[in-house]
Amino acid sequence: MLEALRANQNVQRLLIANGIELGPQMNEIISLAESADIDIEHLQRRDLDRQSRTKKSQGVVAVLPDTRYVEIEDIILEADRRSQSALIAVLDGIVDPHNLGAIARTMDASGGHGMIIPERRAAGISPGAIRASAGALMHLPVARVVNIPRTIEYLNQIGIQTLALTAEAENDYTQSNLTIPTALVIGSEEKGVSRLVRQRCSGAISIPMHGQLASLNASVSAAIALYEAVKQRSSN
Amino acid sequence: MLEALRANQNVQRLLIANGIELGPQMNEIISLAESADIDIEHLQRRDLDRQSRTKKSQGVVAVLPDTRYVEIEDIILEADRRSQSALIAVLDGIVDPHNLGAIARTMDASGGHGMIIPERRAAGISPGAIRASAGALMHLPVARVVNIPRTIEYLNQIGIQTLALTAEAENDYTQSNLTIPTALVIGSEEKGVSRLVRQRCSGAISIPMHGQLASLNASVSAAIALYEAVKQRSSN
Repeated sequence: MLEALRANQNVQRLLIANGIELGPQMNEIISLAESADIDIEHLQRRDLDRQSRTKKSQGVVAVLPDTRYVEIEDIILEADRRSQSALIAVLDGIVDPHNLGAIARTMDASGGHGMIIPERRAAGISPGAIRASAGALMHLPVARVVNIPRTIEYLNQIGIQTLALTAEAENDYTQSNLTIPTALVIGSEEKGVSRLVRQRCSGAISIPMHGQLASLNASVSAAIALYEAVKQRSSN
Repeated sequence: MLEALRANQNVQRLLIANGIELGPQMNEIISLAESADIDIEHLQRRDLDRQSRTKKSQGVVAVLPDTRYVEIEDIILEADRRSQSALIAVLDGIVDPHNLGAIARTMDASGGHGMIIPERRAAGISPGAIRASAGALMHLPVARVVNIPRTIEYLNQIGIQTLALTAEAENDYTQSNLTIPTALVIGSEEKGVSRLVRQRCSGAISIPMHGQLASLNASVSAAIALYEAVKQRSSN
């Protein structure tokens, strides 16, 4: 940690257990953190240990940013960098790591620019999800946000159409213009796109169902819509 | 079993363990089987027990047909019954029950008429596959065949185009005519469509890949191609 602070690495916060001895090393850590304007938080040893990856912390923990995730802006920039109209998947509560992985794999194949997932009550990037993605989650940009409805509003504001994929929508997915900057909003396995999210989307599309079941698997719906986008964009 | 024989149910064979006592009930079973022209097979008790579902058989087992599966002709008839051009999925060695289930679910949704799977080295209809299919495997006709290459030849002969879904094919899936009677041939997760099968197919189609990975998940590929068929058929 001393090395991270000395090298001026991206330390977000410093956690220090109450009552630890302040030897010369600890004093250097604190003064480096103070001069780098890094927040220092004092807490109970027990609470600190809970946040530490190593079982026996030295009583001080540096919080680093979670490098598995990017910002939404990074996804937009990726589309710009490739001079393409943005193609994004917003996952509104996918909980199965296999589905997360499968959607990431199809996102990669379709040339999509990134995915947005919620921080809570949803599958995140995990070894299982990476395996299910055939490795796509190792390079596909994924942003993790606190609030999906607010994210939808933000995407609308910056000129990205937000299309909820729902069974009830009147618009057939093949009838929508998917060549313009688009975020496809995929609902959770159990409940589909939530009402709060649906209300904020700029549109909704559906995939026709010709059998006895009422819905498709989330990763299959995503794939069908993503490849419709691929098709429309390639014939442009 | 006596009831099944008396009711003249569809008993395929009767297995009798060597050396069991022939009481009056056993004698009736044998005479009913003989008069119904049912084959009787005598075998070691150990071998019989291996084929019995109950741990302690009475020394005699009636073999019933496996009602989970249909014949290929039943799938063709289903298309005829609906006055539709056949839409079939042939799975060339899908081993993961989740993939089998996922493909069945999409087959149902796309209005496909049935699936053909191999008897050996492949996932069959199991509780796990049925769960993954959201129940589609409870009603979607599935035929199980000994030899997939020979099945492909048969489908060609009866006027159903057989299209292998492979990454190497030059024809884009959107450029093929999927409105005529079609069997989509989906390869195994590991090896794709096998050479022997590919050689017999009347054509091959591919789904374009725009990312870093070389292939899509088998059930995702199937879904993309099946929904291209849905689209072409609905605009007909």
